[in-house]
Amino acid sequence: MQTELSRKLGIEHAVFGFTPFPAVAAAITRAGGMGVLGAVRYGAGEELARDLDWMEEHTDGKPYGVDVVMPAKKVENVSIADVEAMIPEGHRKYVAETLAKYDVPAMEGESGWRITGWMEAVARSQVDVALEYPVKLIASALGSPPPDVIERAHDRGMLVAALAGSARHAERHQEAGLDIVVAQGYEAGGHTGEIASMVLTPEVVRAVSPLPVLAAGGIGSGEQIAAGLALGAQGVWLGSIWLTTTEAEMHSRALTEKLLAAGSGDTVRSRALTGKPARQLRTEWTDAWDSPDGPGTLPMPLQGLLVADAVSRIQKYEVQPLLGTPVGQIVGSMNTERSVQQVFDDLTRGFERAVDRINEIAGRNDA
Amino acid sequence: MQTELSRKLGIEHAVFGFTPFPAVAAAITRAGGMGVLGAVRYGAGEELARDLDWMEEHTDGKPYGVDVVMPAKKVENVSIADVEAMIPEGHRKYVAETLAKYDVPAMEGESGWRITGWMEAVARSQVDVALEYPVKLIASALGSPPPDVIERAHDRGMLVAALAGSARHAERHQEAGLDIVVAQGYEAGGHTGEIASMVLTPEVVRAVSPLPVLAAGGIGSGEQIAAGLALGAQGVWLGSIWLTTTEAEMHSRALTEKLLAAGSGDTVRSRALTGKPARQLRTEWTDAWDSPDGPGTLPMPLQGLLVADAVSRIQKYEVQPLLGTPVGQIVGSMNTERSVQQVFDDLTRGFERAVDRINEIAGRNDA
Repeated sequence: MQTELSRKLGIEHAVFGFTPFPAVAAAITRAGGMGVLGAVRYGAGEELARDLDWMEEHTDGKPYGVDVVMPAKKVENVSIADVEAMIPEGHRKYVAETLAKYDVPAMEGESGWRITGWMEAVARSQVDVALEYPVKLIASALGSPPPDVIERAHDRGMLVAALAGSARHAERHQEAGLDIVVAQGYEAGGHTGEIASMVLTPEVVRAVSPLPVLAAGGIGSGEQIAAGLALGAQGVWLGSIWLTTTEAEMHSRALTEKLLAAGSGDTVRSRALTGKPARQLRTEWTDAWDSPDGPGTLPMPLQGLLVADAVSRIQKYEVQPLLGTPVGQIVGSMNTERSVQQVFDDLTRGFERAVDRINEIAGRNDA
Repeated sequence: MQTELSRKLGIEHAVFGFTPFPAVAAAITRAGGMGVLGAVRYGAGEELARDLDWMEEHTDGKPYGVDVVMPAKKVENVSIADVEAMIPEGHRKYVAETLAKYDVPAMEGESGWRITGWMEAVARSQVDVALEYPVKLIASALGSPPPDVIERAHDRGMLVAALAGSARHAERHQEAGLDIVVAQGYEAGGHTGEIASMVLTPEVVRAVSPLPVLAAGGIGSGEQIAAGLALGAQGVWLGSIWLTTTEAEMHSRALTEKLLAAGSGDTVRSRALTGKPARQLRTEWTDAWDSPDGPGTLPMPLQGLLVADAVSRIQKYEVQPLLGTPVGQIVGSMNTERSVQQVFDDLTRGFERAVDRINEIAGRNDA
């Protein structure tokens, strides 16, 4: 599975694997793909540094990347406390009431997941750390990174990628000087737009060609990889599929079980987690935020700060009806736990099967 | 582009083209695909018979199909007048007010589009007519047809297909004894579910194998055909792409212009037209029905009856802000008018390009 882009990056398969877990990212890289470590769950840069040290030791010198989340709107000199102060009391009350309704215990000890990575200042410190490591790819899950970040990354020989949910977003990335656009379809986990991958991928390819495009959203099998590449992508970007790998350090066994049991119709595009529409498991928690009877969600980054502690508590205490995570519609096909290497073996085998099939249909039986 | 199914049906390309226009359906069949004439716009069977006579004369003996709409819930012995009586006065008033707001003239002469085809009795009479013609395929856009229809179609050597928006729907079709399932993705025009084609197609293939599956939704290029086939489909089902062909008899030039200008983000899944979620151009008419300030939509078939005359008037008098039609997200790539034959030439060329590309990526350079 070799494209111009995979050759440029020196990876064996044009498969980019986004994951918040260092063990998964390293295993993706070792399996011949490009592991991309999501930094959003880290607080300040030090924690990221610790895990990048670990990545260095476990990737056999093969290339890997880091994904940071930089809000498109830059807010300078604003502390987390300043932003916290912008959250209406009614919303805090709704969080407390909803947690009480489900008997969610108060947090004891350290909070698990944090999502202060949405904050400009935090994302900045993460970028500063990432630039000190020999990462090959810096990706931005929201908007083009600021010009100085792009310049510093390029100076260090890194490629810079960003996610786009429309051709217009993709063109903005191109104008900003990015190297790769990740076309994130409607069916993807996390932040998504309304356009499905089948339409979005070729549209983004047309818009930014010859810039390489990765297809994201709806891809968890080799057949889906073949489809993404047929649509003109130079590689594929997979996130959800790794959540049920044996290397994934999910904070809750109950969540893994929920993912394994979920069907493709059990996700929802909701603003409940971050304030922007993000696909995730549909739960009574997302229902509470999407309900006309609730106060509705706050804009990013307020919503993320508002619910951070609640989400940690729900996960730590495995409060079944509220327990969720960002995941795409392919969750319906994530029914067994496999190692990252097994996933890769299945992906490459499925891809070869799809190529055989397409050649047969095209009457190229000798291929 | 040959699959087991296309060989069984005796068509050159595994491309199924759904269209309400006989001239388009016939041209699709002549170009080597399977033209499928949508019957929903016809009233009683006689009009359909007239156009099927025409189809017989213009398809060079090649196979074509008919698509009828049978609501899953069967209501016996209910006349259109009975159903009309179920429409609340407030909804009729909202139609009148909305039309008045945009100065839509009253209908003079014959109404253009009708959608009484949603009615059980009308669909029945259409099926009775279709079964008298040597059609090769009867398709149902909503639910499995009743057992007697399936049996009569099979007795006449016809294959029976139905659309499905989920694996569960597809399994029901299989249990009902259908021959083909059309997996209709979220991005498709007309009635759709929430699952995008990239995820839905392989899910439906897995659910009903070895029953052949057609990929529908998001397909308007040869690259998208290759993607659909890579996902395991035995063919593709295209509807939107024909709306801007030169053979399409759109009732309004302004509507054609609107389609040519629309982007992929200019559609909406709305209940405005039929009472069930159907993707269509987003207009001030759909906004009026989707608005929290309006009365909301009625269930099928009431909504269709409620708005039938209004939609005819909007189309006849080309009331720009209200003018819409069912169409999928590929409308963003429908930017030029082409003949059906040109569309086919582009589809087959694009498919060959995609196969070349996939083989190059797979390292099968001799293919």
